[in-house]
Amino acid sequence: MLMESLHSESAQPDAPEPDVLERLRQLCIERGLNGLASNLGELGLLVKEDMTQISAELDRLESQGSLAEQAAHYLMGVGGKRLRPMCVALAARVGTGLDQRTLDLAVSVELVHNATLLHDDVIDLAPSRRGLPTARSEFGNAASIFGGDWLLVEALRRVLGADVADALPRLLDTIDTMIRAESLQLERRSRLNTTEEVYFRIVEGKSAVLFRWALYAGARAGGLSTADCEALQDFGSNLGVAFQIIDDLLDFTGQQVDTGKALFTDLREGKMTYPLILACARDETLMPLLRRVCAASEEGRPVDVITSSAVLAKLEETNALRDSRTLAEQRIEAALDALNAVSVKGSDAVTALALVAQSTLHRDR
Amino acid sequence: MLMESLHSESAQPDAPEPDVLERLRQLCIERGLNGLASNLGELGLLVKEDMTQISAELDRLESQGSLAEQAAHYLMGVGGKRLRPMCVALAARVGTGLDQRTLDLAVSVELVHNATLLHDDVIDLAPSRRGLPTARSEFGNAASIFGGDWLLVEALRRVLGADVADALPRLLDTIDTMIRAESLQLERRSRLNTTEEVYFRIVEGKSAVLFRWALYAGARAGGLSTADCEALQDFGSNLGVAFQIIDDLLDFTGQQVDTGKALFTDLREGKMTYPLILACARDETLMPLLRRVCAASEEGRPVDVITSSAVLAKLEETNALRDSRTLAEQRIEAALDALNAVSVKGSDAVTALALVAQSTLHRDR
Repeated sequence: MLMESLHSESAQPDAPEPDVLERLRQLCIERGLNGLASNLGELGLLVKEDMTQISAELDRLESQGSLAEQAAHYLMGVGGKRLRPMCVALAARVGTGLDQRTLDLAVSVELVHNATLLHDDVIDLAPSRRGLPTARSEFGNAASIFGGDWLLVEALRRVLGADVADALPRLLDTIDTMIRAESLQLERRSRLNTTEEVYFRIVEGKSAVLFRWALYAGARAGGLSTADCEALQDFGSNLGVAFQIIDDLLDFTGQQVDTGKALFTDLREGKMTYPLILACARDETLMPLLRRVCAASEEGRPVDVITSSAVLAKLEETNALRDSRTLAEQRIEAALDALNAVSVKGSDAVTALALVAQSTLHRDR
Repeated sequence: MLMESLHSESAQPDAPEPDVLERLRQLCIERGLNGLASNLGELGLLVKEDMTQISAELDRLESQGSLAEQAAHYLMGVGGKRLRPMCVALAARVGTGLDQRTLDLAVSVELVHNATLLHDDVIDLAPSRRGLPTARSEFGNAASIFGGDWLLVEALRRVLGADVADALPRLLDTIDTMIRAESLQLERRSRLNTTEEVYFRIVEGKSAVLFRWALYAGARAGGLSTADCEALQDFGSNLGVAFQIIDDLLDFTGQQVDTGKALFTDLREGKMTYPLILACARDETLMPLLRRVCAASEEGRPVDVITSSAVLAKLEETNALRDSRTLAEQRIEAALDALNAVSVKGSDAVTALALVAQSTLHRDR
């Protein structure tokens, strides 16, 4: 957990919010990332101010008290990393800086993200998210479906109102791609023979395109040139893929207290993650174990310790975890290369974006 | 079944499509509606040509084959009355006529309508619609949720592309209202003491606002004055409410072979309809019977004949069916008054809209 959960709200509402910047700096020092730690001290205030404004905008999201709005507000209130709005704000800061239009775009990207979570949790019949019961558990599937619809429409209204060049048609295209990717994931569910090619199509659509839009829209709002907007959106695509691969790794290596979800959650939902695809290609004795995990899940049983230990052992033996991390690192390198292509030099916001990318590799939730 | 199902596709795909205009004309004659019947002959070609173009546009809706798209295409393929796109086309014809932008708006309103049906059927766990299994029964709840999301985004992309004055912000507001109304209906579900006030808030949001938008957007695309656009949208609101009240009546008086759904479907889903609200206010012995219907439904039992006969008898005795029909007639009168306020005189399209409104009262599905 580094930069990207800088301003996340705590998953336990009764726990006091720690000074997230300080916590992050400590984590960097513990991990020997002294360069990151010292940059954080300098950049903290810049990011903190933006995130405070974005949070205030999100808090102003109105409600007439319908079940749909209650479900949406519940999920939004639980917090989250708010990495996507941070990307919008920083991209705008590479140009002319944060204004109301940028804030509207930043809020919108978070609304779209939460809309997809509300629908996903219904589809996955997920009991918990961010360490708390899901909105569907608290308010029902129907309220979650309408809640997602509502957030989506709210987001589109804001982007329309912000009137930033081609932000709206691109967001509609982005959401279209996301729906197709979610649908593809749905079709592949429990078919454990997913290929790398299908995996990357799903990840592009599920994660990369919304980051891509966040960077592009922020850059457009900041008045950057088309070349710079495109460089920043490439940064976003690569960041999104790396973010998802780290997410995959956390399904095997994360601590539930940090990630807010149990180990093997993806697998138990029938979703093949990158480490598993790598490991299955390298060791054909893994697949029967995965089928056992899925079968247990379908029958509502916990996964037995022998099976889960064997899965983890094979992920280690085949170097699938190591190679997944390497791929995430390569994607972060590609993101940093894209950032280098931005014509604006010496910008604090560019440095901050680089820090966001690097810290994504070290996140623990 | 009159004007508004003029170009509906058959609910049984293997049944040959009858000459719907001729069937409609026969129905008018059977019911002694000779004026309507003769107008139909004259106006048939006008409407038929538009609906052929709209159907062709709907058929061109692309698909990359995802489950979401399959679910959406399945529902769209089953047909439906396509009354909303007809309203867009006729409103445009009051002005400069049908062009590609108008066709895009007409297709969009049908996509939004079908998006809400896909989500509603998941929420209602509905087994059938339009006389065939629902998309959720055929493709699963998840595909229906994503299918609805996809249609919504497709609709918004088209309206954005059509670039007709304030059509897009008004459609976003319209969808927002629809979601709130659906959410309100959800909260009231199975609380049989729904008031008239709550009923009309739900109906405005569920039915009236989308008709309202259809007429407004079509009129704008046709280059009509703001006053004429507003007169036509008032026509749409009143038509939408009348349409819904007739729908309510068909829950008690319709033939399953025509409506494609079993009697008492609304009630068994815990939805209070206008005739029931009227009848309950007039006879307090009805409420225990309604609770019995809902209880049977919740336990998965059919409603016994004695109870259902008693409910129907009370609807007759209290004049609730008669007075519901009267209210629908009053709303159609109000719609026709709004139509009279349109400054364009002698337009075939205005005459056709009047015919649509009048025939709504006589629909049998």
